[in-house]
Amino acid sequence: VTWHRAYVERVLAPDHAFAAEHLHTAFLDALTAHLRTVARLPLARAHASRIAALEVALGRQRDGPPPPPEADVPDLYFALQKRLLADLAAVAGGDGDEAERTLAWLRLGLSRNDLDMTVYVLAARDALLRVAAGSGALRDALLDLAEAHVDTVIIANTHHQPAQPTTFGHYLAAAAAMVGRDHERILGALRRLDRGPLGAAALAGTSHPLDRAFTAETLGFREPVANTYDAVASSDWQLDVAALGQTLGVGLSRLVHDLVAAAADGWLRLDDDLVQGSSIMPQKRNPVTLEHARTRFSRAAGAAQMLAFSSHNVPFGDINDIGPDVQEALRTVLCALEGGLDLLVACVRGAHVDTERLAARAAATDTTATELADELVRTGGLAFTAAHRITAALVRDLARDGRPLQQATPDDLVACGGPRIGADALAEALSPAAFVARRDGLGGPAPAAVRVHLAQSRAELAEYHRAVDTMTARIDAAHRDLRAPGKDTPP
Amino acid sequence: VTWHRAYVERVLAPDHAFAAEHLHTAFLDALTAHLRTVARLPLARAHASRIAALEVALGRQRDGPPPPPEADVPDLYFALQKRLLADLAAVAGGDGDEAERTLAWLRLGLSRNDLDMTVYVLAARDALLRVAAGSGALRDALLDLAEAHVDTVIIANTHHQPAQPTTFGHYLAAAAAMVGRDHERILGALRRLDRGPLGAAALAGTSHPLDRAFTAETLGFREPVANTYDAVASSDWQLDVAALGQTLGVGLSRLVHDLVAAAADGWLRLDDDLVQGSSIMPQKRNPVTLEHARTRFSRAAGAAQMLAFSSHNVPFGDINDIGPDVQEALRTVLCALEGGLDLLVACVRGAHVDTERLAARAAATDTTATELADELVRTGGLAFTAAHRITAALVRDLARDGRPLQQATPDDLVACGGPRIGADALAEALSPAAFVARRDGLGGPAPAAVRVHLAQSRAELAEYHRAVDTMTARIDAAHRDLRAPGKDTPP
Amino acid sequence: VTWHRAYVERVLAPDHAFAAEHLHTAFLDALTAHLRTVARLPLARAHASRIAALEVALGRQRDGPPPPPEADVPDLYFALQKRLLADLAAVAGGDGDEAERTLAWLRLGLSRNDLDMTVYVLAARDALLRVAAGSGALRDALLDLAEAHVDTVIIANTHHQPAQPTTFGHYLAAAAAMVGRDHERILGALRRLDRGPLGAAALAGTSHPLDRAFTAETLGFREPVANTYDAVASSDWQLDVAALGQTLGVGLSRLVHDLVAAAADGWLRLDDDLVQGSSIMPQKRNPVTLEHARTRFSRAAGAAQMLAFSSHNVPFGDINDIGPDVQEALRTVLCALEGGLDLLVACVRGAHVDTERLAARAAATDTTATELADELVRTGGLAFTAAHRITAALVRDLARDGRPLQQATPDDLVACGGPRIGADALAEALSPAAFVARRDGLGGPAPAAVRVHLAQSRAELAEYHRAVDTMTARIDAAHRDLRAPGKDTPP
Amino acid sequence: VTWHRAYVERVLAPDHAFAAEHLHTAFLDALTAHLRTVARLPLARAHASRIAALEVALGRQRDGPPPPPEADVPDLYFALQKRLLADLAAVAGGDGDEAERTLAWLRLGLSRNDLDMTVYVLAARDALLRVAAGSGALRDALLDLAEAHVDTVIIANTHHQPAQPTTFGHYLAAAAAMVGRDHERILGALRRLDRGPLGAAALAGTSHPLDRAFTAETLGFREPVANTYDAVASSDWQLDVAALGQTLGVGLSRLVHDLVAAAADGWLRLDDDLVQGSSIMPQKRNPVTLEHARTRFSRAAGAAQMLAFSSHNVPFGDINDIGPDVQEALRTVLCALEGGLDLLVACVRGAHVDTERLAARAAATDTTATELADELVRTGGLAFTAAHRITAALVRDLARDGRPLQQATPDDLVACGGPRIGADALAEALSPAAFVARRDGLGGPAPAAVRVHLAQSRAELAEYHRAVDTMTARIDAAHRDLRAPGKDTPP
Repeated sequence: VTWHRAYVERVLAPDHAFAAEHLHTAFLDALTAHLRTVARLPLARAHASRIAALEVALGRQRDGPPPPPEADVPDLYFALQKRLLADLAAVAGGDGDEAERTLAWLRLGLSRNDLDMTVYVLAARDALLRVAAGSGALRDALLDLAEAHVDTVIIANTHHQPAQPTTFGHYLAAAAAMVGRDHERILGALRRLDRGPLGAAALAGTSHPLDRAFTAETLGFREPVANTYDAVASSDWQLDVAALGQTLGVGLSRLVHDLVAAAADGWLRLDDDLVQGSSIMPQKRNPVTLEHARTRFSRAAGAAQMLAFSSHNVPFGDINDIGPDVQEALRTVLCALEGGLDLLVACVRGAHVDTERLAARAAATDTTATELADELVRTGGLAFTAAHRITAALVRDLARDGRPLQQATPDDLVACGGPRIGADALAEALSPAAFVARRDGLGGPAPAAVRVHLAQSRAELAEYHRAVDTMTARIDAAHRDLRAPGKDTPP
Repeated sequence: VTWHRAYVERVLAPDHAFAAEHLHTAFLDALTAHLRTVARLPLARAHASRIAALEVALGRQRDGPPPPPEADVPDLYFALQKRLLADLAAVAGGDGDEAERTLAWLRLGLSRNDLDMTVYVLAARDALLRVAAGSGALRDALLDLAEAHVDTVIIANTHHQPAQPTTFGHYLAAAAAMVGRDHERILGALRRLDRGPLGAAALAGTSHPLDRAFTAETLGFREPVANTYDAVASSDWQLDVAALGQTLGVGLSRLVHDLVAAAADGWLRLDDDLVQGSSIMPQKRNPVTLEHARTRFSRAAGAAQMLAFSSHNVPFGDINDIGPDVQEALRTVLCALEGGLDLLVACVRGAHVDTERLAARAAATDTTATELADELVRTGGLAFTAAHRITAALVRDLARDGRPLQQATPDDLVACGGPRIGADALAEALSPAAFVARRDGLGGPAPAAVRVHLAQSRAELAEYHRAVDTMTARIDAAHRDLRAPGKDTPP
Repeated sequence: VTWHRAYVERVLAPDHAFAAEHLHTAFLDALTAHLRTVARLPLARAHASRIAALEVALGRQRDGPPPPPEADVPDLYFALQKRLLADLAAVAGGDGDEAERTLAWLRLGLSRNDLDMTVYVLAARDALLRVAAGSGALRDALLDLAEAHVDTVIIANTHHQPAQPTTFGHYLAAAAAMVGRDHERILGALRRLDRGPLGAAALAGTSHPLDRAFTAETLGFREPVANTYDAVASSDWQLDVAALGQTLGVGLSRLVHDLVAAAADGWLRLDDDLVQGSSIMPQKRNPVTLEHARTRFSRAAGAAQMLAFSSHNVPFGDINDIGPDVQEALRTVLCALEGGLDLLVACVRGAHVDTERLAARAAATDTTATELADELVRTGGLAFTAAHRITAALVRDLARDGRPLQQATPDDLVACGGPRIGADALAEALSPAAFVARRDGLGGPAPAAVRVHLAQSRAELAEYHRAVDTMTARIDAAHRDLRAPGKDTPP
Repeated sequence: VTWHRAYVERVLAPDHAFAAEHLHTAFLDALTAHLRTVARLPLARAHASRIAALEVALGRQRDGPPPPPEADVPDLYFALQKRLLADLAAVAGGDGDEAERTLAWLRLGLSRNDLDMTVYVLAARDALLRVAAGSGALRDALLDLAEAHVDTVIIANTHHQPAQPTTFGHYLAAAAAMVGRDHERILGALRRLDRGPLGAAALAGTSHPLDRAFTAETLGFREPVANTYDAVASSDWQLDVAALGQTLGVGLSRLVHDLVAAAADGWLRLDDDLVQGSSIMPQKRNPVTLEHARTRFSRAAGAAQMLAFSSHNVPFGDINDIGPDVQEALRTVLCALEGGLDLLVACVRGAHVDTERLAARAAATDTTATELADELVRTGGLAFTAAHRITAALVRDLARDGRPLQQATPDDLVACGGPRIGADALAEALSPAAFVARRDGLGGPAPAAVRVHLAQSRAELAEYHRAVDTMTARIDAAHRDLRAPGKDTPP
């Protein structure tokens, strides 16, 4: 059959190109794992040398480029078969029949359905592990920067207006906590993804006693999918990727927002290799790396919807919507996350804080008023509401004279109906640094409290790194085995 | 100040109405928990009777309707304060000053920021627990139906065309496995949500030594949020809700798709109380309950984007975007899920299968061809590719004569170049039921294999129910305590 | 039949409540228009008095509240019929048979399908017209503010950093141009929406010669839908609403972003009735109205996805997905837009600019460097690239000395390798105001150029207002007619 | 400066690759148009030969491949400048200074901001015109198929159940009407896109009197953007693309849904070159081309969200979010639409209907019951509600005996309480074909009514084709001019 121009041009050609660029190795891995499983069938014992030759031929495919598209070959898998057949025939001195009998062992109990799904899961697992590493690196970087700034007082905004003093370390520890929750999400998605579909054949498995647990293990999976229909039909692992694209993308957009604002304000400065200057304006240091991180997070969040729509209101079964046609979207989401994380880590690592500028700014605000009220309750015996009223009057009176709150004197306080307290006690109550230091309860900004939180965060992060490393090591070991031709084939 | 008409009409009025309808109890719970925490401050010891009176007054608010909006009161929290003040003054024989001194204890160390966030989290936790229950009920129903149909052969489609025999039980067990993964997602979201923000004040905590762990426990939370900035700034718990709306909504849309198709095909029939007839067409039994389930899942998936956009490119801090302005969207997502699950459970529980129709249909397809090829490999010693060729020729030849594959005779097979096998063996190889029975490997459709999977699924589900029940019990106990006025206030 | 609890609780009850609150009048309008069309059938001539009595009964329904839900009545339409029947029977002195024969004329050639779709379109048209008015008011407000600020120099940012001088008027005229393009979008959506489905019956029309053009005109529609299948099946008018929610919501979010940033910077100040203060911090003037506008635009953009998912991968035909189940989503999108526009208009009308602050800020930047380079090309005969190099060196040298570019002297320029130009010419080349004044080409920021653009915009806007007003007037006239009982029924 | 690895790897390298592959010609077009505008400046008259040489050099760039990335060159535009400089120097016999003086004319009054935006708009305009052509071809194909099937009776579903007879032509004409509304949407988006940003420079235009109207005309634009800030800041044209991706994608998904269902039902058959068979199951003809069309529409709808998020809550000004970082997303949306339309057109053109199967199926349903009721009103003088009741009883009684409604006799009708009507009249009232023929009102399914609608649709479509062709011709003429080197440069 010659396919319709539109089908070739819009489907077959781009799908082949995508598979050749991104999935070739995964196809060879999956085929090798399947072949090793077939080799263990009683039926196959008598054909061990053929099967061994076939695995060697598969190994040869790894060394060269993927096969190009051809008019009568629908996809990369068929193109690989065609190549293997030619290769085996050449090895067999031109005996095409022998080559076909050999290749037949590869197709036993195998369907394009479970093969494709396995390949897609393998590719997504790799990409997701890169995201996992990037997110781990981000929490590392945030905690390091937080540690360096447990004493750096900033004035936090609410509703885009200065609200209260805290420290940059406190803020960063909060952001790192959000990233820590991302880690739970990533591990959950990885865990659900990390199961092998192979052996499910078209959907019902096969009547040959293929050992699916062995196949899964060979590919470095935690376990096989426990139901063969589920193995080829499910796409909720893709929705997990979509959820990560959206949750991480949108969540981190808020952190980026604040860093961009700090850079615009001038108190945060990025390393020179992260900014774009202008040929004409030497003062212009555009924090474009942050901007590009933002765009990648927007992209990840938006691209997630390609995955959502592709799985929406379609059969729970093998269809193109959740197979070849969604691979580029999966890649877009995961690459956008990976890229955004990489750029953001670079910015956090390359960030410098202008503490003088921050201190001057903090001194000019009235953001310690709350603490003065609290002080009047504690030491003046006032009810909180009365203390508030007096403090508000004080702020107003000083503002009328153009004086910031920190310059208030005991007389000023008395003039507003307040009790007389000592000048030192008053100054202390109005100092941003003291404001911070006094907030030393669980989760507060006082340096000691933040250090407690940081230590706990470091411990969580170490556990996360261990989980990711363990999984990566398992997969690497499987890859080494798989890609060492001849290995594990029974003698 | 008199606010602008647009601000009143578009913001204050609808926000008050929403809070009065959905958040009143949560406000009283949170205020009571805060008050009990204040009561434990050394500073407060001398005022125990005032604080006790205040808790009693809070309790009285529970008995009546929420306060109505007023022109000069910005929100429900201020309206509650105003009511409490009047109530306390009445109790104090009109002594407004005493009432104010009493009420002041409620405001100590409390900000609208942490109070509101606590209330939002409490409301979302309740709604999410209802979703958790609904999803648990769905897996229960699916597993029960699967159990009843481990022997019911269906012809599964791929690409919307008949592909291979399996059983309805096998299909349902696969769908139930997807729901099982939803349970992991739900528990993860619940776990991340189940931490108390209260005590974070505006963002930096307070200088009064409030015991945030006690407050969190009083509200039935697993623990307090470990960083006060995080407590008021984070919205990733909302993105978790969005992710559930999308992942569950889209995932379940695929199950609904298949049930609607089965109903349209006529082999699945819903109970009469789930269909809409027509006054004119008695034959018309529209499976509208399934249709309405589908629309709720579409709504959940779409409404999730309200949450995503609200948190996108905004400061990581206290803002309206993640506070009052997103509460209706959270409710929409969670109610759509809850409603869709409830409707779907009703349909699964009220589903009846026409097995005769299924059997007739299965007999008319050629979907067992794969098994015949496998049989020729096993018993005929053919290579798989050769076996395939012969089987394909057989199907073609029979189709030319208008005979389905299941009527093939040993002679037919030989005529196509196949080996001669016995009539019984051939009939067996072509029987849908045998096709299924032979696929008894891990995860296959053979009844025994499906029963293994079902047993494993039941065990997972029991563990899920336990986790949800434990959490629910903890919260119920906290509610009982909280809503018993006077309890836990030190004497 | 008694429906299933889940179906009643999740579907019938909320749908009835929604219809009773939002669609009652539209139902009565549509039924009246249908009845008047039936009245013109030859078949109906002999029953004119019955039909007149029925229209009077419909009119009575307008005066009271909508009927409450009942256990055996599926929806508001059936509840209305039941009420009409009782009413007619009462009027007929208890003659139930006569009442039924009378009511039968209402049901002739009518289906719930076309009736419901008509009601939904009527409700959406009203809501969309409110959005149209809001968007018109926004462009009005922006053009007025632009007019007031054609001379107000601001430093425009690129990449969140100061880039070049322009005027606030130039900026606002640009934003108003975007709103002008929204007007094209709104009119397109309105035009496509403004066609009457009624008379399409279930989908195939009826064999009674009902005059659908008359029905459409009676309801104030531009024309009837030209294909009866299209009339009940299409939902692309809902996707137009989704597109508006997204396009206007996201587009306007960018304008709000800049206004929030200007308010945070302090050079833009909102009227007191648009800000939220704080009981403790008198300096705190949170521009919450802008924040709430932002959240409404986020909501509109996100809610649009409920509409997109509801129409995705479902049959092109009458289904619940595009009928009752999507009405709340349509309302959410359109109300969010209407509310956001109302809030934003209030902010634009209530915005005040601190021009001194702007001027001081402009003087401190080096953003006129480009113009100096251009001047050197024009008067110094330099190639542009050479002129750039010299200007860059000058900026750098001055920055080293802590001097802003505007303080450069002719000697400074020569010292950097530039030509000697007069002090006045140099000062002029470096003045932000002159920078603006010189950019008087098509679309540039020079006051005269902006005035040309504003005049053109006013003309476009007047045409838009005319289009909206004409449509509104047509609908109002139809409503007056429809709601005057007895009118147009043949004697 | 050496940029950070992450910035190079995640931003600069992929952006260069994308621009080289997709934007090279647009860059050369835009630069040529700018140069021709500069050439008309009074200032430039004396340098005409230099400028002519520069245009020739630009022409040479068209003949070769785009420049590769280099470590110290940030993007394709700078790489092109570097190449031009080398080329000009070579032409000038190695005189680098002369080369630079020549190249300087290209940079006069030009900024990367307006250049990039122009290039992006040019690329999007081309891609959108391809979508416009594809959508036109779809309406053509639908109308042709409708014409061929104005007499082909189908039973239309509502709620996934058989409802009433109509024709395939009526259905297709309805679908084509939806596509006709898409044409309004496409033309609106094209119109708003078709304006030239060039000459806006960084955002404020330039002090050189560049004729922006001439530049726009040279690039084949309808007109220049009327405000220079708008020219570089706006991204609502991208939101128009997003809206098309969503509106067309989701809208067409409903048509595809029905075609897939018809193919699954077996009454619609695609040409062999559009289906995928199976090596083992000759009967398997998977309508994968339709499935792939569906996935492209899902992708278009989802990818639209990348555009929505990229423009959300970001400044209205020149930023990367709406520039380089969103180009791939624009391409994804537009290519998905183009591909989906191409595949769908192939399917509509390659669709064959099994009319016998349809007729047999129609005869077996009771879907003409409504018409019998209407007949009883018309000829029997019954009230509609009474007629309904009798018809319903008749359907029920026949169903009890296993007889379809079309076999009802006059006696059957009388037995149910109906009037006696003639056997022929009864048969006619129950015939699907007559059902259709009688519905000949405006928009009904009767062949004559459908032909009226088709004729009107053809006229609309012809007008659309004219509009697209006119625009295309204008652009082609501009391209011919632009790409003929030396043309239009003053001597």
